[in-house]
Amino acid sequence: MPQTIAFTKGHGTGNDFVVIADPDGELDLSDDQIAVLCDRRFGIGADGVLRVVRSAAIGEGVTAAAGAEWFMDYRNADGSKAEMCGNGIRVFARYLTETGLAVLETDGSLPIGTRAGIKTLTRDARGFEVDLGSWLVEPDDVLVRARGLEVPRPGLGIDVGNPHVVVALSGTDELDGLDLAVRPQMHPEPAAGANIEFVVPRDPLVLDGVGGIRMRVFERGVGETLSCGTGVAAAALAVRHWAGPAAPDSWTVDVPGGTLGVRVQRVGDEPHVLLSGPATLVYSGEVALA
Amino acid sequence: MPQTIAFTKGHGTGNDFVVIADPDGELDLSDDQIAVLCDRRFGIGADGVLRVVRSAAIGEGVTAAAGAEWFMDYRNADGSKAEMCGNGIRVFARYLTETGLAVLETDGSLPIGTRAGIKTLTRDARGFEVDLGSWLVEPDDVLVRARGLEVPRPGLGIDVGNPHVVVALSGTDELDGLDLAVRPQMHPEPAAGANIEFVVPRDPLVLDGVGGIRMRVFERGVGETLSCGTGVAAAALAVRHWAGPAAPDSWTVDVPGGTLGVRVQRVGDEPHVLLSGPATLVYSGEVALA
Repeated sequence: MPQTIAFTKGHGTGNDFVVIADPDGELDLSDDQIAVLCDRRFGIGADGVLRVVRSAAIGEGVTAAAGAEWFMDYRNADGSKAEMCGNGIRVFARYLTETGLAVLETDGSLPIGTRAGIKTLTRDARGFEVDLGSWLVEPDDVLVRARGLEVPRPGLGIDVGNPHVVVALSGTDELDGLDLAVRPQMHPEPAAGANIEFVVPRDPLVLDGVGGIRMRVFERGVGETLSCGTGVAAAALAVRHWAGPAAPDSWTVDVPGGTLGVRVQRVGDEPHVLLSGPATLVYSGEVALA
Repeated sequence: MPQTIAFTKGHGTGNDFVVIADPDGELDLSDDQIAVLCDRRFGIGADGVLRVVRSAAIGEGVTAAAGAEWFMDYRNADGSKAEMCGNGIRVFARYLTETGLAVLETDGSLPIGTRAGIKTLTRDARGFEVDLGSWLVEPDDVLVRARGLEVPRPGLGIDVGNPHVVVALSGTDELDGLDLAVRPQMHPEPAAGANIEFVVPRDPLVLDGVGGIRMRVFERGVGETLSCGTGVAAAALAVRHWAGPAAPDSWTVDVPGGTLGVRVQRVGDEPHVLLSGPATLVYSGEVALA
């Protein structure tokens, strides 16, 4: 008799997840079970699975979650473990607060454990904002070739916990004309690969003190997606970098799946990048595990 | 306050559907609501919606269902109405029998009303078999060009309630090498378009009295899909036609989403084509209508 589990389906700007409550860590999902759950025709369909487990109940080897009651066990659609997901963690926070499993601290914050350490979320009018921490700008550009671009373009490497390469295009026509059904090539190819973000500045770039860009993304191992949370942060950081010292700290990024906000804020001695945007719970159901 | 409805998700060889019970015909789903339900990232995700409604409760203009207790109101993912779906109707029958809404007649059959008239299903070991009725072979071949084929190939037009063009390829390499991300071209282009099936005979073609083929399909208005029920029937009928009078009446068709059976059987004065295969209910849930 197959085990039946309850789940909730949610998304952040079209990046979608199966959320499974497992407070006491009793559920040991195999890669194959995850893959079936995430299959869009034979299963539920999602970019990944978010298992909701108490930090006290996760296995050894994950010590970074001490201090957060809840841990986000993120699994990619193929079952592999991922450290963090900028859209997923907002859906995770939405789930925790809507179900009452967690309440916000008195200052409105909610710490969530991840394989990349504790991330702090704050509720705002549009959803949740997550502090992604500090970032790193690579010193050397890489050259990016993509179908639809006549000549290779320089890309700026930005690491926000995972690696990105951001490429500026000349305008909306060029962005819309890109054929991302084919994987763009990088020279040199980063050892661990990278997500590639193609960005176009808004005209005017800065409006009421907020910078604006449009972006499309090619995720390593996946292809073009509707949204990538850390990619959105990297894209805003790259354009801010190019714009120089007068650039604003607040950005709006339009992706095919919606609109996200990016903010740079000093936390202690260090500038942090924060990502905000909607997080939606679409439906709940019960499924038999394969 | 949005209305919340219960649903079940099911599929037949990867062709997937949201099944909604509405026995008394109280649910008037707009095209937009259907489109949101069928969106694979912002909604539930499916190829279409099967509304389960009593024939007595469907609106005027559909009189063909008289004689069947239940009517399959099939809507495509964009909300448009469709007459029939060879995979959908098996999922529909599975839903009716599993929920107890319908019981099989004493001879094991179950009549279901559709916009293409009443279809009779029969339960078998693998799932359900549906009688698709008679078919029509077009007298003139069309020429089909597809990316991955060096020269255009003749295609046989077969109508099984909806129009198909079936193209024989030389072998498995040619079938696997087809690039169906691009729509194949037909000369002349049929006025209402057509689904295009590319088929390769098994070696040996006939084994224990059963013919075998492999097939890929490009559905008009959709693109390549994992399976197309009527396309599978058309493909078997085309190869049977080419094989001549000695060809068997039973066929096995492998599609990317699984395996289906096709049978030709005389019903009264007329040969009918019957389609059989699995029909699976994957999960149930509740969703708020947009």
